[in-house]
Amino acid sequence: MVDLPRCRRATWSDTDAWADRVAERVRGAGALPDTIVGLTRGGWVPSRLVADRLGVKRLVSLRAQHWGVTATPTGAAELTEGLSGPVDGRRVLVVDDITDTGESLALAVAHVTAARPERVESAAFLHISQAKFTPTYYAEEIPRDGWVWVVFPWNYWEDLATLAARAAAFGRGVDRVRATLRERCALDVPRGDLERIAPFVPIE
Amino acid sequence: MVDLPRCRRATWSDTDAWADRVAERVRGAGALPDTIVGLTRGGWVPSRLVADRLGVKRLVSLRAQHWGVTATPTGAAELTEGLSGPVDGRRVLVVDDITDTGESLALAVAHVTAARPERVESAAFLHISQAKFTPTYYAEEIPRDGWVWVVFPWNYWEDLATLAARAAAFGRGVDRVRATLRERCALDVPRGDLERIAPFVPIE
Repeated sequence: MVDLPRCRRATWSDTDAWADRVAERVRGAGALPDTIVGLTRGGWVPSRLVADRLGVKRLVSLRAQHWGVTATPTGAAELTEGLSGPVDGRRVLVVDDITDTGESLALAVAHVTAARPERVESAAFLHISQAKFTPTYYAEEIPRDGWVWVVFPWNYWEDLATLAARAAAFGRGVDRVRATLRERCALDVPRGDLERIAPFVPIE
Repeated sequence: MVDLPRCRRATWSDTDAWADRVAERVRGAGALPDTIVGLTRGGWVPSRLVADRLGVKRLVSLRAQHWGVTATPTGAAELTEGLSGPVDGRRVLVVDDITDTGESLALAVAHVTAARPERVESAAFLHISQAKFTPTYYAEEIPRDGWVWVVFPWNYWEDLATLAARAAAFGRGVDRVRATLRERCALDVPRGDLERIAPFVPIE
Protein backbone atom coordinates (compact mmCIF):
# COMPACT_ATOMS: atom_id res chain seq x y z
CA MET A 1 0.00 0.00 0.00
CA VAL A 2 1.53 3.36 -0.93
CA ASP A 3 1.31 5.97 1.79
CA LEU A 4 -2.18 7.35 1.19
CA PRO A 5 -3.42 5.67 -1.97
CA ARG A 6 -6.57 6.45 -3.89
CA CYS A 7 -9.06 3.86 -2.66
CA ARG A 8 -12.15 2.14 -3.87
CA ARG A 9 -14.36 0.69 -1.19
CA ALA A 10 -15.93 -2.54 -2.42
CA THR A 11 -19.38 -3.46 -1.10
CA TRP A 12 -20.73 -6.93 -0.39
CA SER A 13 -22.86 -6.43 -3.42
CA ASP A 14 -19.73 -5.91 -5.59
CA THR A 15 -18.28 -9.01 -4.00
CA ASP A 16 -21.32 -11.15 -4.78
CA ALA A 17 -21.32 -9.88 -8.36
CA TRP A 18 -17.62 -10.73 -8.77
CA ALA A 19 -18.22 -14.24 -7.41
CA ASP A 20 -21.12 -14.64 -9.87
CA ARG A 21 -18.91 -13.52 -12.75
CA VAL A 22 -16.00 -15.80 -11.87
CA ALA A 23 -18.35 -18.78 -11.42
CA GLU A 24 -20.03 -18.08 -14.78
CA ARG A 25 -16.66 -18.03 -16.50
CA VAL A 26 -15.57 -21.28 -14.89
CA ARG A 27 -18.84 -22.94 -15.92
CA GLY A 28 -18.58 -21.37 -19.37
CA ALA A 29 -15.18 -22.99 -19.81
CA GLY A 30 -16.63 -26.36 -18.72
CA ALA A 31 -13.93 -26.51 -16.08
CA LEU A 32 -15.73 -27.36 -12.82
CA PRO A 33 -13.17 -27.93 -10.06
CA ASP A 34 -13.61 -30.51 -7.29
CA THR A 35 -11.34 -28.61 -4.89
CA ILE A 36 -11.01 -24.90 -4.30
CA VAL A 37 -7.82 -23.62 -2.72
CA GLY A 38 -8.26 -20.32 -0.90
CA LEU A 39 -5.20 -18.18 -0.15
CA THR A 40 -4.95 -16.67 3.31
CA ARG A 41 -6.01 -14.16 4.06
CA GLY A 42 -7.40 -12.43 0.98
CA GLY A 43 -8.75 -15.53 -0.73
CA TRP A 44 -10.88 -17.00 2.04
CA VAL A 45 -14.05 -15.03 1.39
CA PRO A 46 -13.75 -15.11 -2.43
CA SER A 47 -13.06 -18.86 -2.39
CA ARG A 48 -16.06 -19.54 -0.15
CA LEU A 49 -18.34 -17.46 -2.39
CA VAL A 50 -17.11 -19.09 -5.60
CA ALA A 51 -17.41 -22.56 -4.00
CA ASP A 52 -21.03 -21.81 -3.11
CA ARG A 53 -21.87 -20.87 -6.69
CA LEU A 54 -20.07 -23.88 -8.18
CA GLY A 55 -21.35 -26.39 -5.61
CA VAL A 56 -17.80 -27.29 -4.59
CA LYS A 57 -17.69 -28.75 -1.09
CA ARG A 58 -13.96 -29.18 -0.69
CA LEU A 59 -12.10 -26.06 0.43
CA VAL A 60 -8.37 -26.18 1.15
CA SER A 61 -6.38 -23.32 2.60
CA LEU A 62 -2.99 -22.13 1.41
CA ARG A 63 -1.03 -19.47 3.22
CA ALA A 64 0.66 -16.85 1.07
CA GLN A 65 2.63 -14.43 3.17
CA HIS A 66 3.55 -11.06 1.75
CA TRP A 67 6.71 -9.82 3.26
CA GLY A 68 6.62 -6.21 4.30
CA VAL A 69 8.37 -3.59 2.19
CA THR A 70 10.95 -3.03 4.89
CA ALA A 71 11.86 -6.71 4.84
CA THR A 72 12.15 -7.14 1.08
CA PRO A 73 12.54 -4.13 -1.22
CA THR A 74 10.94 -6.17 -4.01
CA GLY A 75 7.79 -6.79 -1.98
CA ALA A 76 8.25 -10.48 -2.76
CA ALA A 77 5.62 -12.98 -1.65
CA GLU A 78 6.52 -16.31 -0.16
CA LEU A 79 4.45 -19.32 0.78
CA THR A 80 5.28 -19.88 4.42
CA GLU A 81 2.82 -22.66 5.19
CA GLY A 82 1.48 -25.49 3.16
CA LEU A 83 -1.86 -26.74 2.00
CA SER A 84 -4.41 -27.74 4.63
CA GLY A 85 -5.32 -30.89 2.68
CA PRO A 86 -4.06 -33.05 -0.20
CA VAL A 87 -4.76 -32.01 -3.79
CA ASP A 88 -3.10 -34.84 -5.73
CA GLY A 89 -5.31 -36.09 -8.53
CA ARG A 90 -7.76 -33.22 -7.93
CA ARG A 91 -9.14 -30.62 -10.30
CA VAL A 92 -8.10 -27.51 -8.43
CA LEU A 93 -9.14 -23.89 -8.69
CA VAL A 94 -6.87 -21.54 -6.70
CA VAL A 95 -8.72 -18.38 -5.65
CA ASP A 96 -7.52 -15.00 -4.42
CA ASP A 97 -9.09 -11.56 -4.16
CA ILE A 98 -6.82 -9.50 -6.40
CA THR A 99 -3.68 -9.95 -8.48
CA ASP A 100 -1.75 -6.92 -7.39
CA THR A 101 1.72 -7.87 -8.51
CA GLY A 102 0.40 -11.34 -9.32
CA GLU A 103 3.14 -12.94 -7.31
CA SER A 104 0.99 -14.59 -4.61
CA LEU A 105 -1.22 -16.32 -7.12
CA ALA A 106 1.73 -17.35 -9.32
CA LEU A 107 3.49 -18.87 -6.29
CA ALA A 108 0.31 -20.56 -5.12
CA VAL A 109 -0.28 -22.14 -8.52
CA ALA A 110 3.32 -23.37 -8.60
CA HIS A 111 2.95 -24.77 -5.08
CA VAL A 112 -0.30 -26.58 -5.94
CA THR A 113 1.18 -27.86 -9.22
CA ALA A 114 4.04 -29.44 -7.28
CA ALA A 115 1.41 -31.40 -5.28
CA ARG A 116 0.38 -33.24 -8.49
CA PRO A 117 -3.24 -32.27 -9.04
CA GLU A 118 -5.03 -33.51 -12.18
CA ARG A 119 -5.47 -29.88 -13.19
CA VAL A 120 -4.88 -26.47 -11.69
CA GLU A 121 -6.51 -23.23 -12.73
CA SER A 122 -6.72 -19.91 -10.93
CA ALA A 123 -9.16 -17.10 -10.34
CA ALA A 124 -9.19 -13.64 -8.82
CA PHE A 125 -12.04 -11.22 -8.36
CA LEU A 126 -9.91 -8.37 -9.67
CA HIS A 127 -6.95 -8.45 -12.00
CA ILE A 128 -4.53 -5.55 -12.32
CA SER A 129 -3.37 -5.25 -15.94
CA GLN A 130 0.29 -6.09 -16.43
CA ALA A 131 0.50 -8.07 -13.21
CA LYS A 132 3.23 -10.68 -13.63
CA PHE A 133 0.60 -13.39 -13.61
CA THR A 134 -2.78 -13.52 -15.33
CA PRO A 135 -5.32 -15.76 -13.59
CA THR A 136 -7.31 -18.20 -15.72
CA TYR A 137 -10.50 -16.40 -14.68
CA TYR A 138 -11.22 -12.98 -13.24
CA ALA A 139 -14.29 -10.84 -12.83
CA GLU A 140 -12.92 -7.40 -13.54
CA GLU A 141 -9.71 -5.91 -14.89
CA ILE A 142 -8.22 -2.74 -13.43
CA PRO A 143 -5.85 -0.91 -15.75
CA ARG A 144 -2.45 -0.34 -14.16
CA ASP A 145 -2.73 3.43 -14.69
CA GLY A 146 -6.12 3.41 -12.96
CA TRP A 147 -4.68 1.59 -9.96
CA VAL A 148 -6.51 2.07 -6.70
CA TRP A 149 -6.25 0.33 -3.37
CA VAL A 150 -9.34 -1.83 -3.14
CA VAL A 151 -10.84 -1.91 0.34
CA PHE A 152 -12.63 -5.25 0.52
CA PRO A 153 -15.45 -5.69 3.04
CA TRP A 154 -13.43 -8.37 4.84
CA ASN A 155 -10.47 -6.04 5.26
CA TYR A 156 -12.25 -2.79 5.95
CA TRP A 157 -11.30 -2.28 9.60
CA GLU A 158 -7.68 -3.20 9.10
CA ASP A 159 -7.36 -0.92 6.07
CA LEU A 160 -9.17 1.88 7.86
CA ALA A 161 -6.80 1.60 10.85
CA THR A 162 -3.73 1.68 8.57
CA LEU A 163 -4.99 4.58 6.44
CA ALA A 164 -6.32 6.62 9.37
CA ALA A 165 -2.99 6.32 11.23
CA ARG A 166 -1.20 7.66 8.14
CA ALA A 167 -3.82 10.36 7.57
CA ALA A 168 -3.26 11.56 11.16
CA ALA A 169 0.20 12.75 10.07
CA PHE A 170 -1.61 15.53 8.19
CA GLY A 171 -3.51 16.56 11.31
CA ARG A 172 -5.14 14.75 14.19
CA GLY A 173 -8.71 14.46 15.33
CA VAL A 174 -11.60 12.45 13.90
CA ASP A 175 -12.91 15.25 11.67
CA ARG A 176 -9.52 16.17 10.30
CA VAL A 177 -8.58 12.54 9.61
CA ARG A 178 -11.93 12.01 7.98
CA ALA A 179 -11.36 14.98 5.68
CA THR A 180 -7.85 13.77 4.80
CA LEU A 181 -9.15 10.32 3.90
CA ARG A 182 -11.80 11.90 1.71
CA GLU A 183 -9.43 14.28 -0.03
CA ARG A 184 -6.35 12.12 -0.44
CA CYS A 185 -7.82 8.61 -0.64
CA ALA A 186 -11.27 9.35 -2.07
CA LEU A 187 -12.50 7.29 0.87
CA ASP A 188 -15.70 8.47 2.50
CA VAL A 189 -16.02 6.87 5.93
CA PRO A 190 -18.73 7.36 8.54
CA ARG A 191 -17.59 9.45 11.49
CA GLY A 192 -18.69 6.62 13.81
CA ASP A 193 -16.21 4.23 12.20
CA LEU A 194 -13.31 6.53 13.06
CA GLU A 195 -14.64 6.98 16.59
CA ARG A 196 -14.74 3.21 16.89
CA ILE A 197 -11.07 2.74 16.03
CA ALA A 198 -9.88 5.81 17.97
CA PRO A 199 -9.18 3.82 21.18
CA PHE A 200 -6.78 1.55 19.25
CA VAL A 201 -5.28 3.82 16.60
CA PRO A 202 -3.46 7.10 17.38
CA ILE A 203 -5.61 9.53 15.41
CA GLU A 204 -6.59 11.92 18.16
CA MET B 1 -31.24 -30.00 7.41
CA VAL B 2 -34.74 -31.40 7.91
CA ASP B 3 -36.70 -31.85 4.71
CA LEU B 4 -38.13 -28.38 4.26
CA PRO B 5 -37.17 -26.42 7.37
CA ARG B 6 -38.30 -22.96 8.35
CA CYS B 7 -35.49 -20.71 7.19
CA ARG B 8 -34.03 -17.34 8.03
CA ARG B 9 -32.01 -15.72 5.32
CA ALA B 10 -29.11 -13.81 6.85
CA THR B 11 -27.88 -10.71 5.04
CA TRP B 12 -24.33 -9.40 4.82
CA SER B 13 -25.45 -6.68 7.12
CA ASP B 14 -26.46 -9.30 9.76
CA THR B 15 -23.11 -10.94 9.24
CA ASP B 16 -21.16 -7.72 9.77
CA ALA B 17 -23.17 -7.00 12.91
CA TRP B 18 -22.47 -10.51 14.28
CA ALA B 19 -18.76 -10.08 13.62
CA ASP B 20 -18.86 -6.71 15.40
CA ARG B 21 -20.61 -8.29 18.38
CA VAL B 22 -18.22 -11.23 18.68
CA ALA B 23 -15.19 -8.94 18.39
CA GLU B 24 -16.59 -6.59 21.05
CA ARG B 25 -17.05 -9.53 23.42
CA VAL B 26 -13.54 -10.82 22.83
CA ARG B 27 -12.10 -7.34 23.46
CA GLY B 28 -14.39 -6.92 26.47
CA ALA B 29 -12.93 -10.09 27.96
CA GLY B 30 -9.40 -8.78 27.34
CA ALA B 31 -8.70 -11.97 25.43
CA LEU B 32 -7.15 -10.87 22.13
CA PRO B 33 -6.02 -13.95 20.18
CA ASP B 34 -2.90 -14.02 18.00
CA THR B 35 -4.25 -16.82 15.80
CA ILE B 36 -7.75 -17.41 14.51
CA VAL B 37 -8.70 -20.91 13.42
CA GLY B 38 -11.52 -20.99 10.89
CA LEU B 39 -13.46 -24.21 10.38
CA THR B 40 -14.19 -25.25 6.82
CA ARG B 41 -16.47 -24.46 5.31
CA GLY B 42 -18.81 -22.51 7.59
CA GLY B 43 -16.15 -20.72 9.59
CA TRP B 44 -14.09 -19.19 6.81
CA VAL B 45 -16.10 -16.02 6.31
CA PRO B 46 -16.86 -15.49 10.03
CA SER B 47 -13.21 -16.02 10.94
CA ARG B 48 -12.03 -13.56 8.30
CA LEU B 49 -14.51 -10.93 9.50
CA VAL B 50 -13.64 -11.38 13.16
CA ALA B 51 -9.90 -11.31 12.33
CA ASP B 52 -10.40 -7.98 10.53
CA ARG B 53 -12.08 -6.44 13.55
CA LEU B 54 -9.49 -7.76 16.01
CA GLY B 55 -6.47 -6.97 13.84
CA VAL B 56 -5.41 -10.63 13.82
CA LYS B 57 -3.21 -11.43 10.83
CA ARG B 58 -2.76 -15.14 11.36
CA LEU B 59 -5.57 -17.31 10.02
CA VAL B 60 -5.34 -21.10 10.17
CA SER B 61 -7.84 -23.46 8.61
CA LEU B 62 -9.30 -26.57 10.22
CA ARG B 63 -11.51 -28.94 8.34
CA ALA B 64 -14.57 -30.25 10.19
CA GLN B 65 -16.45 -32.71 8.05
CA HIS B 66 -20.08 -33.44 8.86
CA TRP B 67 -20.96 -36.91 7.79
CA GLY B 68 -24.25 -37.22 6.03
CA VAL B 69 -27.25 -38.60 7.88
CA THR B 70 -27.14 -41.75 5.73
CA ALA B 71 -23.56 -42.39 6.84
CA THR B 72 -24.02 -41.84 10.57
CA PRO B 73 -27.48 -41.88 12.09
CA THR B 74 -26.19 -39.63 14.86
CA GLY B 75 -25.10 -36.94 12.41
CA ALA B 76 -21.70 -37.06 14.07
CA ALA B 77 -19.00 -34.65 12.98
CA GLU B 78 -15.42 -35.72 12.50
CA LEU B 79 -12.26 -33.80 11.81
CA THR B 80 -10.88 -35.39 8.67
CA GLU B 81 -8.00 -33.03 8.01
CA GLY B 82 -5.68 -31.17 10.24
CA LEU B 83 -4.69 -27.63 10.88
CA SER B 84 -3.10 -25.66 8.04
CA GLY B 85 -0.46 -24.26 10.38
CA PRO B 86 1.02 -24.76 13.86
CA VAL B 87 -0.78 -23.37 16.91
CA ASP B 88 1.54 -24.45 19.72
CA GLY B 89 2.18 -21.67 22.19
CA ARG B 90 -0.45 -19.50 20.47
CA ARG B 91 -3.50 -17.73 21.86
CA VAL B 92 -6.14 -19.27 19.63
CA LEU B 93 -9.73 -18.33 18.87
CA VAL B 94 -11.60 -21.05 16.97
CA VAL B 95 -14.44 -19.59 14.88
CA ASP B 96 -17.48 -21.16 13.24
CA ASP B 97 -20.77 -19.79 11.92
CA ILE B 98 -23.29 -21.60 14.11
CA THR B 99 -23.34 -24.21 16.87
CA ASP B 100 -26.09 -26.44 15.58
CA THR B 101 -25.45 -29.56 17.61
CA GLY B 102 -22.21 -27.95 18.84
CA GLU B 103 -20.25 -31.00 17.85
CA SER B 104 -18.02 -29.42 15.17
CA LEU B 105 -16.86 -26.67 17.46
CA ALA B 106 -16.36 -29.06 20.41
CA LEU B 107 -14.24 -31.36 18.23
CA ALA B 108 -12.30 -28.44 16.79
CA VAL B 109 -11.49 -27.08 20.24
CA ALA B 110 -10.34 -30.54 21.37
CA HIS B 111 -8.21 -30.87 18.23
CA VAL B 112 -6.60 -27.46 18.74
CA THR B 113 -6.07 -28.14 22.46
CA ALA B 114 -4.13 -31.29 21.57
CA ALA B 115 -1.77 -29.09 19.53
CA ARG B 116 -0.66 -27.32 22.75
CA PRO B 117 -1.68 -23.70 22.29
CA GLU B 118 -1.13 -21.26 25.16
CA ARG B 119 -4.90 -20.73 25.25
CA VAL B 120 -7.89 -21.76 23.23
CA GLU B 121 -11.28 -20.07 23.16
CA SER B 122 -14.12 -20.36 20.68
CA ALA B 123 -16.69 -18.20 18.98
CA ALA B 124 -19.74 -18.63 16.78
CA PHE B 125 -21.97 -16.02 15.20
CA LEU B 126 -25.06 -17.93 16.31
CA HIS B 127 -25.53 -20.33 19.18
CA ILE B 128 -28.46 -22.70 19.39
CA SER B 129 -29.55 -23.08 23.01
CA GLN B 130 -28.87 -26.50 24.44
CA ALA B 131 -26.25 -27.32 21.84
CA LYS B 132 -23.84 -29.83 23.40
CA PHE B 133 -21.16 -27.16 23.41
CA THR B 134 -21.36 -23.48 24.34
CA PRO B 135 -18.77 -21.29 22.63
CA THR B 136 -16.82 -18.82 24.75
CA TYR B 137 -18.32 -15.98 22.69
CA TYR B 138 -21.35 -15.71 20.41
CA ALA B 139 -23.30 -12.87 18.90
CA GLU B 140 -26.82 -14.19 19.13
CA GLU B 141 -28.61 -17.09 20.80
CA ILE B 142 -31.40 -18.97 19.04
CA PRO B 143 -33.72 -20.85 21.41
CA ARG B 144 -33.96 -24.53 20.49
CA ASP B 145 -37.75 -24.28 20.12
CA GLY B 146 -37.34 -21.34 17.76
CA TRP B 147 -34.92 -23.33 15.59
CA VAL B 148 -34.65 -22.25 11.98
CA TRP B 149 -32.23 -23.17 9.24
CA VAL B 150 -30.04 -20.12 8.82
CA VAL B 151 -29.18 -19.40 5.19
CA PHE B 152 -25.86 -17.55 5.35
CA PRO B 153 -24.84 -15.33 2.43
CA TRP B 154 -21.86 -17.60 1.74
CA ASN B 155 -24.08 -20.66 1.47
CA TYR B 156 -27.08 -19.20 -0.28
CA TRP B 157 -26.79 -20.92 -3.65
CA GLU B 158 -26.06 -24.32 -2.19
CA ASP B 159 -28.95 -24.06 0.28
CA LEU B 160 -31.24 -22.77 -2.44
CA ALA B 161 -30.38 -25.71 -4.70
CA THR B 162 -30.98 -28.22 -1.90
CA LEU B 163 -34.24 -26.66 -0.76
CA ALA B 164 -35.58 -26.06 -4.28
CA ALA B 165 -34.92 -29.68 -5.27
CA ARG B 166 -36.94 -30.82 -2.24
CA ALA B 167 -39.65 -28.25 -2.83
CA ALA B 168 -40.03 -29.59 -6.39
CA ALA B 169 -41.46 -32.78 -4.87
CA PHE B 170 -44.56 -30.71 -4.07
CA GLY B 171 -44.88 -29.58 -7.68
CA ARG B 172 -42.46 -28.54 -10.37
CA GLY B 173 -41.87 -25.27 -12.16
CA VAL B 174 -40.20 -22.09 -10.99
CA ASP B 175 -43.39 -20.43 -9.76
CA ARG B 176 -44.65 -23.47 -7.93
CA VAL B 177 -41.27 -24.11 -6.27
CA ARG B 178 -41.05 -20.45 -5.33
CA ALA B 179 -44.47 -20.62 -3.66
CA THR B 180 -43.52 -23.84 -1.81
CA LEU B 181 -40.34 -22.23 -0.48
CA ARG B 182 -42.31 -19.24 0.69
CA GLU B 183 -45.06 -21.28 2.35
CA ARG B 184 -43.08 -24.12 3.87
CA CYS B 185 -39.68 -22.52 4.51
CA ALA B 186 -40.67 -18.87 4.96
CA LEU B 187 -38.02 -18.22 2.35
CA ASP B 188 -38.76 -15.49 -0.16
CA VAL B 189 -36.44 -15.85 -3.15
CA PRO B 190 -36.32 -13.78 -6.31
CA ARG B 191 -37.73 -15.60 -9.34
CA GLY B 192 -34.46 -14.92 -11.17
CA ASP B 193 -32.50 -16.91 -8.60
CA LEU B 194 -34.60 -20.02 -9.28
CA GLU B 195 -34.24 -19.49 -13.02
CA ARG B 196 -30.52 -19.32 -12.52
CA ILE B 197 -30.27 -22.69 -10.80
CA ALA B 198 -32.86 -24.40 -13.06
CA PRO B 199 -30.22 -25.69 -15.53
CA PHE B 200 -28.47 -27.54 -12.69
CA VAL B 201 -31.27 -28.50 -10.31
CA PRO B 202 -34.32 -30.57 -11.36
CA ILE B 203 -37.07 -28.13 -10.49
CA GLU B 204 -38.80 -27.85 -13.84
